[in-house]
Amino acid sequence: MTTQELLQKAKRAKTSLATASTAVKNAALLAMAGALEADTSPILAANAMDMEAAWGHISEVMLDRLALSEQRLAGMAQGIREVAALPDPVGQVLRRVERPNGLVIEKTAVPMGVIAIIYESRPNVTSDAAVLALKAGSACVLRCGKEAHRSAAAIVAALQKGLASSGLSPDLVQLVEDTSRQSANELMTASGLVDLLIPRGGAGLIRACVENATVNVIETGTGICHVYVDESADLDMALNIVENAKTSRPSVCNAEEVLLVHRSAAAELLPRLRRRLVEDRAAAGKVPVELRLDSTAAAIIPGTPAGPADFDTEFLDYILAVKVVDSVDEAIAHIAAHSTGHSDAILTRDSEAAKRFTALVDSAAVYVNASTRFTDGGEFGLGCEMGISTQKLHARGPMGLEELCTYKYVITGSGQIR
Amino acid sequence: MTTQELLQKAKRAKTSLATASTAVKNAALLAMAGALEADTSPILAANAMDMEAAWGHISEVMLDRLALSEQRLAGMAQGIREVAALPDPVGQVLRRVERPNGLVIEKTAVPMGVIAIIYESRPNVTSDAAVLALKAGSACVLRCGKEAHRSAAAIVAALQKGLASSGLSPDLVQLVEDTSRQSANELMTASGLVDLLIPRGGAGLIRACVENATVNVIETGTGICHVYVDESADLDMALNIVENAKTSRPSVCNAEEVLLVHRSAAAELLPRLRRRLVEDRAAAGKVPVELRLDSTAAAIIPGTPAGPADFDTEFLDYILAVKVVDSVDEAIAHIAAHSTGHSDAILTRDSEAAKRFTALVDSAAVYVNASTRFTDGGEFGLGCEMGISTQKLHARGPMGLEELCTYKYVITGSGQIR
Repeated sequence: MTTQELLQKAKRAKTSLATASTAVKNAALLAMAGALEADTSPILAANAMDMEAAWGHISEVMLDRLALSEQRLAGMAQGIREVAALPDPVGQVLRRVERPNGLVIEKTAVPMGVIAIIYESRPNVTSDAAVLALKAGSACVLRCGKEAHRSAAAIVAALQKGLASSGLSPDLVQLVEDTSRQSANELMTASGLVDLLIPRGGAGLIRACVENATVNVIETGTGICHVYVDESADLDMALNIVENAKTSRPSVCNAEEVLLVHRSAAAELLPRLRRRLVEDRAAAGKVPVELRLDSTAAAIIPGTPAGPADFDTEFLDYILAVKVVDSVDEAIAHIAAHSTGHSDAILTRDSEAAKRFTALVDSAAVYVNASTRFTDGGEFGLGCEMGISTQKLHARGPMGLEELCTYKYVITGSGQIR
Repeated sequence: MTTQELLQKAKRAKTSLATASTAVKNAALLAMAGALEADTSPILAANAMDMEAAWGHISEVMLDRLALSEQRLAGMAQGIREVAALPDPVGQVLRRVERPNGLVIEKTAVPMGVIAIIYESRPNVTSDAAVLALKAGSACVLRCGKEAHRSAAAIVAALQKGLASSGLSPDLVQLVEDTSRQSANELMTASGLVDLLIPRGGAGLIRACVENATVNVIETGTGICHVYVDESADLDMALNIVENAKTSRPSVCNAEEVLLVHRSAAAELLPRLRRRLVEDRAAAGKVPVELRLDSTAAAIIPGTPAGPADFDTEFLDYILAVKVVDSVDEAIAHIAAHSTGHSDAILTRDSEAAKRFTALVDSAAVYVNASTRFTDGGEFGLGCEMGISTQKLHARGPMGLEELCTYKYVITGSGQIR
């Protein structure tokens, strides 16, 4: 089936979901979870073929992301059941006014319609994205990277069985067959068919979507996150937070990439930082962090001299760029010039500095005295997420079910004219 | 000054506004209103030059839109004072959660940053757009059509005097000097400088923005609005509403362009409609409405045969396309195929039909038993508007101050790590 035909089918199917009750949607989700578990064998077989084909062509980290197991599949099914248990965002009245002329105006949450998701090689995204879109009342069209295509096709087949068994159209979850660049371009320009496009993946994919899409796009994920240690910071707390933000999971978008240190704190903090992130970790058999230091920091501790690119790089690795600044305003200006608008933190005991930082740092999440690693739908209490928006329109930060909806005004009158 | 230089100045200026208190912003707005009135003479002189240059080159309707008078200027100043009196959207905490780990997460309304507006020839848009952006905490960069450029420059000069006298940077309101297509393209692709672009004008301008912009855009305004008269409708009410929606102000985007009539109601409604919209209006010396009829309607009353384009045209004139349908579902399907997603109405006494119509018609405003003419910021109780969004992302329908803001999460901790 061509991508156009598949989009037309999704568009026709979305109507049935727009009028489906919460109970019908939840029953379908539970059936999809069951179907996923029932299809464990064919899904693992398809995944084994993907793994074999990818072997030697992609990195070990990527191979691990691609790999499925009985346990990972059970986790995916459990994730679907958790989404079923979340409140239904559709139909919520966000604001209600009765006007002097008697018109009742209700701003009402409604589904987007058709959500397209372009992603790379993690097969679990297939079911996560599909069930979030479905719970939010939208059909979804998935387009995964070629490495994961057999796995994704087997997962989608199972999800469609679940949909069919619950009486909803299997066309509500579709996988694009073509994994060439052509199909991604078709999704980006499918005006009238795709209501929202979410790219999940590397910076190149996201830039291509932003530059070429004529449909609505939400940029996700790129995170050059900063932690600024103010002169008044509690340095014990600062060391804990910097270590956590950098090393607890360096491959994710909310990990710290850049440390900014106030000049007054640098002489004490930096030697302790080096001991904690480099020496102690090496002694404990952990990967030490490579510190890339600006000239002021390099005068205090040994490390790699930072090049200019180091302050504009999402390392996703055990590497931390370090810069010494003279003031909170210099930290704010550095962040304005280099941040991707994801998550940035100030560590301080000075409430004025905290207030200035949170007002002027223009990022989705701005932290005072906590690790940037908390930017996550679950940690924010949203129950789930479709990705972290780094743009300013519609949704910012973790996108949960509410952020996957739009709204309409429903106006009820009794013959009012103007 | 080049458009790039001007954008850089706006970007630098936005910081001062992000930390300005409500009182400071309101004082600046009142000073801007006063400066506008004080500059009445130079503004009217500039407008007279615009009018003279445009004479014979643009239609009378457009000339009327371009014309300023002492009274219109006083109205613009009054509009500014009304915006000053509205609540400040910036800093509102939209959601607050305290997590079990003690983190306090506040979803907080914040300014967009720099809002660019591309518009055509109405000089009042210059001050309306500037003050709405300013109250919402954003700098604005205005780019008007060449016909209105002298008028806009005089208005912006006055607004900048008001800003300066109140201690805010005059760079917060800027007018692009270049009125060629080049400057519009520069705004569309000014990533990192323009946080939101709002095109206000004809369908061609809006399509160009959607297709070419790499910055965030909100589509506004195109309205092919439908009124569907159901079989159970009160026909007296229907005639009142259809007449109002079509004739009270045909040049605006919330005017009705297409009437859909249920087959069971057509035999009685259509002759009465013809009498009301054509014969009675002609007899009263008003412009009669030209009815463009599908074949079923044409078998009931005389009128112009409708061509297929008539159901996809925003007439903005005393023209109404009329089609007879067999069911509410056929009306919904017609609207899905032809609507621009602005405002559509059902007139009915059947609550099931109303429920189905409001659930399935995918437009910003869906009416039951009222005229589409109410889609307007003031009528919706928003106090003001920057235009009517016809897209589904971020803002839908009338955009007031809240819709001109974005949000960020401000997270306050006491050393939490993950």
